[in-house]
Amino acid sequence: MSIDKFEIEGFRFSAVGAGIKHADSDRLDLALIASERPAITVGVTTTNLVCAAPVTITRECLQRGISQALLINSGNANAYTGDSGLADALFLTKSVADRLGIAHELVVPMSTGVIGQPLPVDRMNAKIPELAALISPSAFLDAASAILTTDTFPKTALVEKRLSNGLLKIVGMAKGAGMMAPNMATMLAVVLVNMSVEESYLRKVFVQANSLTFNRITVDGDTSTNDTAIVMSGGSDQSKELLDNDTDRDLFSQGVLSICANLARQIVKDGEGATKVVEVKVFGAPDEVSAARVSRRIAESPLVKTAFHGEDPNWGRIVCAAGSAGVKFDPSMIDLWIGSVQIVKSGILEVGDWEARAKQEMRYPEFSVSIDLKTGSAHATILTCDLSEEYVAINADYRS
Amino acid sequence: MSIDKFEIEGFRFSAVGAGIKHADSDRLDLALIASERPAITVGVTTTNLVCAAPVTITRECLQRGISQALLINSGNANAYTGDSGLADALFLTKSVADRLGIAHELVVPMSTGVIGQPLPVDRMNAKIPELAALISPSAFLDAASAILTTDTFPKTALVEKRLSNGLLKIVGMAKGAGMMAPNMATMLAVVLVNMSVEESYLRKVFVQANSLTFNRITVDGDTSTNDTAIVMSGGSDQSKELLDNDTDRDLFSQGVLSICANLARQIVKDGEGATKVVEVKVFGAPDEVSAARVSRRIAESPLVKTAFHGEDPNWGRIVCAAGSAGVKFDPSMIDLWIGSVQIVKSGILEVGDWEARAKQEMRYPEFSVSIDLKTGSAHATILTCDLSEEYVAINADYRS
Repeated sequence: MSIDKFEIEGFRFSAVGAGIKHADSDRLDLALIASERPAITVGVTTTNLVCAAPVTITRECLQRGISQALLINSGNANAYTGDSGLADALFLTKSVADRLGIAHELVVPMSTGVIGQPLPVDRMNAKIPELAALISPSAFLDAASAILTTDTFPKTALVEKRLSNGLLKIVGMAKGAGMMAPNMATMLAVVLVNMSVEESYLRKVFVQANSLTFNRITVDGDTSTNDTAIVMSGGSDQSKELLDNDTDRDLFSQGVLSICANLARQIVKDGEGATKVVEVKVFGAPDEVSAARVSRRIAESPLVKTAFHGEDPNWGRIVCAAGSAGVKFDPSMIDLWIGSVQIVKSGILEVGDWEARAKQEMRYPEFSVSIDLKTGSAHATILTCDLSEEYVAINADYRS
Repeated sequence: MSIDKFEIEGFRFSAVGAGIKHADSDRLDLALIASERPAITVGVTTTNLVCAAPVTITRECLQRGISQALLINSGNANAYTGDSGLADALFLTKSVADRLGIAHELVVPMSTGVIGQPLPVDRMNAKIPELAALISPSAFLDAASAILTTDTFPKTALVEKRLSNGLLKIVGMAKGAGMMAPNMATMLAVVLVNMSVEESYLRKVFVQANSLTFNRITVDGDTSTNDTAIVMSGGSDQSKELLDNDTDRDLFSQGVLSICANLARQIVKDGEGATKVVEVKVFGAPDEVSAARVSRRIAESPLVKTAFHGEDPNWGRIVCAAGSAGVKFDPSMIDLWIGSVQIVKSGILEVGDWEARAKQEMRYPEFSVSIDLKTGSAHATILTCDLSEEYVAINADYRS
């Protein structure tokens, strides 16, 4: 029997169908991820003022920097559910803790789905014995499937690197951002590391990776009530330590960045109705915040996103979006490319067949847009998708 | 022969087809509005860093506070056209000035249409004699039609009020914001006042009306390179003065506000692909800027706008958008209504048949969404439209 490539020392997985969204559905919607021992845990959560009950509990766990189990459900966000939502989440995490024989505060709840409806606690609780009994090293993909809502494929990533004291392995799973959830945007991501990494360094690496990946994607500009990205490291007594030398640390941080970038790209690729993944690159900005702001403005403009969908090299919309980002630059100085085709050079429209060539670049499922603002040396890239009729259909007609 | 209801003392109009967008089209695309004498003129223009050549010239006119003619074309924005774009606009306004026998600096150019393409100056200039010859008091509707691009109807408004020294008449025309223009969002609005109003007071009234009307609408959140709203007052030697008494001044400012609000609503109603006009009202905010920010965040959320299109009372999306606006409030305190149907009361979801009743409210072509943040006494309303598949089709397929 071949070993599941996502197996990772110290962590086990299971998933069941608890009928969370529809009582009569048996699709996988409740996942458990557990480490053999308490694992060093860091993470980031939504900046939305309206945050879900599980996010409140997750934040407390993250302050302690340690956890041993993640209980993740799809189909219901447990958001805007008040005190009873908090009580529901605590009841379920307690049930998991008792079943696994671990401390209650080591269980982190994560939820995604419809806002404002109570969790079906009884149905979920009835499934926890099965969830605990099924747990195994080889059920990573089941768990990655159970956390999805309207995503069209599970999002997984894997990195292995040879470090000085052994093989580093990092695995990750995510569910889509933007419009993926039935009723509300949510991004959830879980990253697991076989080695044991001290909390402060793990936090530094993960926060940086998050800011360059999950925080640099957009489907529609909406920030969910439930967004959570979490990393657990060193789940086994046999877990090796990540040594404190530059080579190992560089390989580790590259690995985390690569996992997060890989998952983030999959989320954009699976954006509702999306047919294109577009990298919006802004160079020559006065600072990175300004670069990201111009890039995000372009990446979120409905005019730009519909032009992407129509494979229309409508550079005027791109320049116009850039100009309204609140960042100062001289429009008569900029350069602009679609893919490798330069369209504007020092503020002057190129002559020749750029339009046909740019259109050709846009036929690919992935392409880039680049602007050089010529006002500094900072840069930033936002990953976005196109805006299609199907996106509207999915979101307008969902509940009808 | 009946008098055109938009006739206004001191102003004359004409419109011709100059083949600006397509050389072989004879649709009206070039309009002239002229006063009999230099008129007191104030206005506001786009905040986009990338502003069109005509906007640069308009700003100079607005600094002088006086103008006598507006030359407005559709089909080409004359934006991002560099020094030659400026020269083109100046050449055409000079041609108009010579033909009308007025000073060059009294002619204000306004343009809307495709970005980054040179104006067809020769074709336009060849039409200026005809434009000048046709000018008449009764061609207001021709001019209002010539400034449109993909708008589906001309936007006009009219107010008459009996003041102490005579009848105040204000007329206005506009073209659509958001995705109305072929290649770029543009709002243009012209308001004409029969009475003579001193510049400082006219500016105060118009800036305030603009901030409460044109600046409180959104189709897609894009800010155009060409947005311009302008008011001319007292175009005739016979124009009466607006007297300086509270009653007349109140009636006048109400009149200007009413014209601007009326035109703004028509712009939203005619948003590309729009089937609904929705008033997003935010109450109980700490200050007006915060109220407008929360309202705009809701009004521009693609999730919210697609739910409007689907007539889906998806209040979770509204609360989530409010929570991500960057304004502090306590989500567990808020009230929320769709139309007159209360859905959330002090943070608690209502029981009963609110969903069916809210859905019923959303079937109307116009409805409101209201949120009370319970953190202060300021309020603001943004007018928005729904986001439909047709909007995507129009903007994705436009140039194909």
